[in-house]
Amino acid sequence: MDERHLAELLDDVAAGRLSVPEAVDGLRSLPFEAVPDAKVDHHRELRTGQAEAIYGPGKTPAQIRDIARALCAQASGAVLLTRADAEQAAAALEAVPDATYDPRSGLVVLQRAPRADGRSVAVVAAGTSDLPVAEEAAGTAGALGLDVTRVEDVGVAGVHRVLAHRADLEAADCVIVVAGMEGALPSVVAGLTSRPVVAVPTSVGYGASFEGLAALLGMMSSCAPGVAVVNIDNGFGAALVAHRILRARER
Amino acid sequence: MDERHLAELLDDVAAGRLSVPEAVDGLRSLPFEAVPDAKVDHHRELRTGQAEAIYGPGKTPAQIRDIARALCAQASGAVLLTRADAEQAAAALEAVPDATYDPRSGLVVLQRAPRADGRSVAVVAAGTSDLPVAEEAAGTAGALGLDVTRVEDVGVAGVHRVLAHRADLEAADCVIVVAGMEGALPSVVAGLTSRPVVAVPTSVGYGASFEGLAALLGMMSSCAPGVAVVNIDNGFGAALVAHRILRARER
Amino acid sequence: MDERHLAELLDDVAAGRLSVPEAVDGLRSLPFEAVPDAKVDHHRELRTGQAEAIYGPGKTPAQIRDIARALCAQASGAVLLTRADAEQAAAALEAVPDATYDPRSGLVVLQRAPRADGRSVAVVAAGTSDLPVAEEAAGTAGALGLDVTRVEDVGVAGVHRVLAHRADLEAADCVIVVAGMEGALPSVVAGLTSRPVVAVPTSVGYGASFEGLAALLGMMSSCAPGVAVVNIDNGFGAALVAHRILRARER
Amino acid sequence: MDERHLAELLDDVAAGRLSVPEAVDGLRSLPFEAVPDAKVDHHRELRTGQAEAIYGPGKTPAQIRDIARALCAQASGAVLLTRADAEQAAAALEAVPDATYDPRSGLVVLQRAPRADGRSVAVVAAGTSDLPVAEEAAGTAGALGLDVTRVEDVGVAGVHRVLAHRADLEAADCVIVVAGMEGALPSVVAGLTSRPVVAVPTSVGYGASFEGLAALLGMMSSCAPGVAVVNIDNGFGAALVAHRILRARER
Amino acid sequence: MDERHLAELLDDVAAGRLSVPEAVDGLRSLPFEAVPDAKVDHHRELRTGQAEAIYGPGKTPAQIRDIARALCAQASGAVLLTRADAEQAAAALEAVPDATYDPRSGLVVLQRAPRADGRSVAVVAAGTSDLPVAEEAAGTAGALGLDVTRVEDVGVAGVHRVLAHRADLEAADCVIVVAGMEGALPSVVAGLTSRPVVAVPTSVGYGASFEGLAALLGMMSSCAPGVAVVNIDNGFGAALVAHRILRARER
Amino acid sequence: MDERHLAELLDDVAAGRLSVPEAVDGLRSLPFEAVPDAKVDHHRELRTGQAEAIYGPGKTPAQIRDIARALCAQASGAVLLTRADAEQAAAALEAVPDATYDPRSGLVVLQRAPRADGRSVAVVAAGTSDLPVAEEAAGTAGALGLDVTRVEDVGVAGVHRVLAHRADLEAADCVIVVAGMEGALPSVVAGLTSRPVVAVPTSVGYGASFEGLAALLGMMSSCAPGVAVVNIDNGFGAALVAHRILRARER
Amino acid sequence: MDERHLAELLDDVAAGRLSVPEAVDGLRSLPFEAVPDAKVDHHRELRTGQAEAIYGPGKTPAQIRDIARALCAQASGAVLLTRADAEQAAAALEAVPDATYDPRSGLVVLQRAPRADGRSVAVVAAGTSDLPVAEEAAGTAGALGLDVTRVEDVGVAGVHRVLAHRADLEAADCVIVVAGMEGALPSVVAGLTSRPVVAVPTSVGYGASFEGLAALLGMMSSCAPGVAVVNIDNGFGAALVAHRILRARER
Amino acid sequence: MDERHLAELLDDVAAGRLSVPEAVDGLRSLPFEAVPDAKVDHHRELRTGQAEAIYGPGKTPAQIRDIARALCAQASGAVLLTRADAEQAAAALEAVPDATYDPRSGLVVLQRAPRADGRSVAVVAAGTSDLPVAEEAAGTAGALGLDVTRVEDVGVAGVHRVLAHRADLEAADCVIVVAGMEGALPSVVAGLTSRPVVAVPTSVGYGASFEGLAALLGMMSSCAPGVAVVNIDNGFGAALVAHRILRARER
Repeated sequence: MDERHLAELLDDVAAGRLSVPEAVDGLRSLPFEAVPDAKVDHHRELRTGQAEAIYGPGKTPAQIRDIARALCAQASGAVLLTRADAEQAAAALEAVPDATYDPRSGLVVLQRAPRADGRSVAVVAAGTSDLPVAEEAAGTAGALGLDVTRVEDVGVAGVHRVLAHRADLEAADCVIVVAGMEGALPSVVAGLTSRPVVAVPTSVGYGASFEGLAALLGMMSSCAPGVAVVNIDNGFGAALVAHRILRARER
Repeated sequence: MDERHLAELLDDVAAGRLSVPEAVDGLRSLPFEAVPDAKVDHHRELRTGQAEAIYGPGKTPAQIRDIARALCAQASGAVLLTRADAEQAAAALEAVPDATYDPRSGLVVLQRAPRADGRSVAVVAAGTSDLPVAEEAAGTAGALGLDVTRVEDVGVAGVHRVLAHRADLEAADCVIVVAGMEGALPSVVAGLTSRPVVAVPTSVGYGASFEGLAALLGMMSSCAPGVAVVNIDNGFGAALVAHRILRARER
Repeated sequence: MDERHLAELLDDVAAGRLSVPEAVDGLRSLPFEAVPDAKVDHHRELRTGQAEAIYGPGKTPAQIRDIARALCAQASGAVLLTRADAEQAAAALEAVPDATYDPRSGLVVLQRAPRADGRSVAVVAAGTSDLPVAEEAAGTAGALGLDVTRVEDVGVAGVHRVLAHRADLEAADCVIVVAGMEGALPSVVAGLTSRPVVAVPTSVGYGASFEGLAALLGMMSSCAPGVAVVNIDNGFGAALVAHRILRARER
Repeated sequence: MDERHLAELLDDVAAGRLSVPEAVDGLRSLPFEAVPDAKVDHHRELRTGQAEAIYGPGKTPAQIRDIARALCAQASGAVLLTRADAEQAAAALEAVPDATYDPRSGLVVLQRAPRADGRSVAVVAAGTSDLPVAEEAAGTAGALGLDVTRVEDVGVAGVHRVLAHRADLEAADCVIVVAGMEGALPSVVAGLTSRPVVAVPTSVGYGASFEGLAALLGMMSSCAPGVAVVNIDNGFGAALVAHRILRARER
Repeated sequence: MDERHLAELLDDVAAGRLSVPEAVDGLRSLPFEAVPDAKVDHHRELRTGQAEAIYGPGKTPAQIRDIARALCAQASGAVLLTRADAEQAAAALEAVPDATYDPRSGLVVLQRAPRADGRSVAVVAAGTSDLPVAEEAAGTAGALGLDVTRVEDVGVAGVHRVLAHRADLEAADCVIVVAGMEGALPSVVAGLTSRPVVAVPTSVGYGASFEGLAALLGMMSSCAPGVAVVNIDNGFGAALVAHRILRARER
Repeated sequence: MDERHLAELLDDVAAGRLSVPEAVDGLRSLPFEAVPDAKVDHHRELRTGQAEAIYGPGKTPAQIRDIARALCAQASGAVLLTRADAEQAAAALEAVPDATYDPRSGLVVLQRAPRADGRSVAVVAAGTSDLPVAEEAAGTAGALGLDVTRVEDVGVAGVHRVLAHRADLEAADCVIVVAGMEGALPSVVAGLTSRPVVAVPTSVGYGASFEGLAALLGMMSSCAPGVAVVNIDNGFGAALVAHRILRARER
Repeated sequence: MDERHLAELLDDVAAGRLSVPEAVDGLRSLPFEAVPDAKVDHHRELRTGQAEAIYGPGKTPAQIRDIARALCAQASGAVLLTRADAEQAAAALEAVPDATYDPRSGLVVLQRAPRADGRSVAVVAAGTSDLPVAEEAAGTAGALGLDVTRVEDVGVAGVHRVLAHRADLEAADCVIVVAGMEGALPSVVAGLTSRPVVAVPTSVGYGASFEGLAALLGMMSSCAPGVAVVNIDNGFGAALVAHRILRARER
Repeated sequence: MDERHLAELLDDVAAGRLSVPEAVDGLRSLPFEAVPDAKVDHHRELRTGQAEAIYGPGKTPAQIRDIARALCAQASGAVLLTRADAEQAAAALEAVPDATYDPRSGLVVLQRAPRADGRSVAVVAAGTSDLPVAEEAAGTAGALGLDVTRVEDVGVAGVHRVLAHRADLEAADCVIVVAGMEGALPSVVAGLTSRPVVAVPTSVGYGASFEGLAALLGMMSSCAPGVAVVNIDNGFGAALVAHRILRARER
């Protein structure tokens, strides 16, 4: 796209339809749209396969409304707002009336991508308390057009529970594992399946879990090679990783 | 496989070819081989698509020799020894004479997987000092049968260098990004390409890089969604993640 | 139990009462019960001697109600809900009307184990501010059927206070020591008695106690060998450790 | 000034206009004014080119009122109150009625410096959520008499956005870069421009950003030499650094 | 003992065999022996059931020799020197010729306790690289008179390996679990057995394992209640905990 | 005192006024008083020169009332309650009607020691925001009977302010220095005076001050030998240290 | 330059001297030179005013030789190699025979910039042990063409020493302050002068200085606004910051 | 002294013996002596009662020789070199032939203060491994002219050992307590004695002691008020604190 655009511009110069200073300006012209307080990066979808998402915290409702409108006007796939509080979600729903809001995870789906054939992800949660993060992952993955299977409450203190789901793990194309406390579930899962494992540490736990640090370091140090980790409580990010993985070998 | 094995065993019970106590024993029989000081997990290749690797540090040369022999006797794909020092590498080469050793990364390739068609990975290093870790990733990926493209010295202080490689990034099926210091390169790469990005923080840097902590936290906190992170200096692990990704949608 | 179950199933296969596919399904059948959002691990009591406990934080009242009911329907021993807030406790009491709730520690005892003969634990608290954690330990231990002796406010700044309780320490079968700030009491206690010492660091203190980190590191680094440590403020976990210890040599 | 004052005093001694004990006292006499609970350092403006600022947190409204009045009575340049909450701001506005208050950053401009010719600073923010910190920097810089250009939402996930502003960066005399999460923007900016780069890590982000620690360590470890860093969320401090820089070669 | 000693002394006073000042002195007299640079606490064996051990690091060979001789002259049970280097071990062997030295763990057994009937401990190691720490635990437990079963290389990446040892775990009276990297094995073991589980984090691993911190925090935060933790690499301490546990209900 | 008490008891035994078993009991009898939930250590005043203080956080109003009454009934010197909130302070004032409460520091003075002749302490605060901590130090020191001089707002950004107070520093017998942010003032003060310097880091500051960690580490690492440090925000502890110092050479 | 180059290229297209595909290629052509294992960023000097420096650690002598030759062949200003060990320095001197090497700081000056008129920097070191870092700063600044004044051993424990150098501080255009331990000197210096202050924490100190962390956090938290900080022991980086500052208002 | 010097200078101005510019210069003249690479602060002894000490690490033998000579030429009291290695000690002994060197602590006593009457300090070490740090404290205190009593190996695992030394503690004017691992001894000592307690955490211990961090945080968080803490392993600093304490009430 960028290259086609560049070639056209140069054609115009070669044909005299564009002066050199105009071309310099044109080459400077930005593949983003300035709204108040933000630069909406419309080309991100072209470059990375997924439109820019709006990170809620620290933004005013007005900023969210403006950015949501600008993104939805141009994006062909999913458009998401993350970590929204009630007031921010209301602003988003005002801008995009058929958006949906999940208050436990703070995820607002402003626009959904078309359903992708044959791309499935299993979202596995170690405990019931990890479900809000798992829901952010599952909700995001669904909005991105992926098939989502949920497996919940299969922590390592009862390891037979996850063993019982081996077929589910292998049936998915990619596995997202959400776990707090010691964060050991991804190591067990990665030892059971050949699928890519995206691990999400959560801040569930207290004391020496230090807001998810224990799970984060544990997942990083996993004895099972093939585990890739995203930020603490970052279900959204895990779904984006899965989305990239499932298009890895496409052109 | 496990299930086929189970069904066969149960068939034998049903047919009276196996008594119930024998079946209980058979179900107990372990899919691993005991060598001195280790249990070689031969089924890991079946379960996860890649044989157990030998982690060098803390093992005696004799332990390494025994495990290397046991793994190579059974594995059909790649067999690797990581972080080997010279003495450990010598023991491995004694056990498997046509193994290869890269002293800068400590990687010993004991056995190589057959070449996989159409599975390629780009290994991108931010600086020349990150090359030993990048080499561990590239050497592992090659042994796993993947096509490897190397892109080196494209750190963000001269961001045009990585921009110049956009086509290389998009041409690969998966991108491994190796960076120390502030570890910013994966964010830039993930913003440029739609490919899965596996980030490897390195311990390159001094002072406030705190042996790779700065890069690790930075990659975790990346503003570009779709970055998955492995342990500090863990080029081996990044290649294993890439290997899983590239078989994600296969049956 | 698992093995008996397995033998019966195989007998059924051998006797033709069960087809091979049915047996495969049966072997797959899970020793847990699926309630909405959770998998209640009923076999945990059989495996570990103590039923699964419900960790309150992050769960909805409805989830707590469902899990509480499912556990109490099957468990023969104690059933506990930890760290419950008032709303969660109300949901638990709705499900199990004769449960008891201690608001300072957040412990809900849903069901009590029968009293065990001759198994006693001393719960020693360094300061009055550590009492909520000590109470979680004592309340849990009591619900598990243990005899509980409480010794409170015997911190090391007045070391004669704990010396005065030496007989109490030795009279118990196991000693739980709860201490915040510098967490030094377990070292002194372990030097005075031959009993197992389970240390619980608390988050009591300010500044450089860093929410219990000082006590945790101190207890870990104790100069008195024979101190085992659980998580910060984890009175519940300490009681579970004591429970295991007091059945250590039983069959 | 100090030296002139000293010379005059010594002249008075030499001329007999001042006795030796009086001179000792005079040399002792303090270049600050005692108000209740504070010592207003009126000479700081003479020594450092900028009057003492009032740091809000922990101060009572009455203390703020007294210090504000004392500073404004003597300072010739800007006088600022930082991190003020609404009650503190009200006290300041009572003392200095034409002060201005920005509630998002907490900055109160009590008195503005005259406009400086030809001293410009660009304040660059990585994301919209970083704007309150950027606003503290811009508001402070403006009060100090500098020309301020704002560039916002140019984070590294869409690196073309900052490339499009290269001319703006080079046009400024000094660049302040405000970024949270992985804090990578200063490295990219410092690689693009020859201007001094003052980096401000922000606490924007969650999980492994650890309240700005990830950005702080990243900026410290920048692979682009020539980046100088101030405290997390310290837009005020960055503007003060810029102010010093822009007078660096003046006498 | 202390009380008997006290009663005798008071009897002597009552009988006029001891003057009051002599009694004061006697009450002052210390239940330890002063050797150069140390106070050998001979009563520790009486109080805690196990004689003082010698911690090697930082002590001179001469100090070790003196303390070893003094302890062996009085102790009736095991006497141990930990973390000894070759020179320290030589000094200990000079003092106690039939001592034994394990150079990998640094453990010197100066004197062994008599064999205890029916007290057994299983020492479970996650990986071959964890064996030196497991050996310190096993060697200490053996010297304390316990029966020791070793289970090695059963890390969670191949969870069937530990499942295959469930009978071994349950057959022991107490289980010591030694694991580095993410330290997840104790959670799995505690979910499988009713025995007390003593967890030892090791410094095996690199990068984000931060010298055992990842394993330590993970074990602390274990989702399986009933796990008690000792210091990083502290196999010796784990054995002492097991020793106390196995005498818990004895008088 | 303890020894006198011991000698008297032994005299009674020698004189037949006390039987041996009674003496054993007497020696066992504890120098503390049990109130509900606490053991009031009345001998602490005898041993350490200062009665036990009540640490407020985590205690119920009823517990505070009971402990306050018990301490005031026996202590001859100062009795203090620290970090009290309004409800706790009310309970203390109910127990001891003429107590005084300082809401900013949370200090309740339940009973004052008699004024000590010729023992003076200077309490030096770096900034106005540090005053609540300085007030806790000054209020405690005053209650302990010391003369207190306050020096405030003399931070190192205007180092002449503290230079102007050199005489005040030297006139005091001991100097308490309270500082947040970088915590540099104790180094400067210790370089100016020969008096003992007790440094109190405060949690004043934001971002990289990490709740007082920056000041704590800085004071620990002071280049000026002779600085002793207490806990973050621990004005109370600093006053207790000063109190000990000022009686150092008395008998 | 870039823009001029772009305009020329477009002129060539407009004039038919260059075809559109050739222009696309030309726009793609990279402003860097590929040597083995590195991409020498020759345009960095044009963009940032200073050529890329070679960071020694982790590079082979051959890599250093190649990069050094490539940089010196094109750079018009200073070319530097940092943190070189003896072997790396020898390789650099082989490539550039008139380079100079300072073994204490590891700095190799491969090429010097012409002397700049009227740009001066003062390098102030708190202690003699900080001199290697100060020397790296001074050596770098000199190579960049700046006038360097050294002020050494003026730590805050004797604050009159730095007061005695106030004129030197004010005479310089910019001040670099190098300090370990508590790192307080920059706060004092910034309170004395109006010049920009670039602070360098060093790893000098032990224990709680934690390899420079104490100084780093302290400088970050400085109560004196206007302090900008670089990485621990990063004298090189401080000089680069000073270099940018001294050209801040030039065109 | 400073003031006398100032008065004389002003007398000279008043008497016309000194011109005003000369006086300005004279006031500038520094109370320190410049030797190569250092400014020997001869006035520190006058201001603080103790001459500047030489911190060995990072200094060359030549620097140490020069500073040692300069200090000994002027100091009337003790002169010390700390943390010296063998080469540095040799340089010091060359400069000051009758100096003494303790290789375990690295302390070189270049010059001793006269013996002080009636000022005594007890140096208490928790374990034999803490003796090098205790020796640095005792050696420094002795050189400063204090009476030193050593009490060693009285750690809290055998708390009766320190109880047996209560009279020694109370007999001293000040108590230095040196402890590694959990660092609990100062709390116990401070609860036993009314003397000032200076606590020195040591780096003795492993794993979770994190090079002395556990002991440092523990001592900071001590439940016994009246404990003041110095840096990890800083026996020298503790002796300096004791020295100040013992002169606290002198004029």
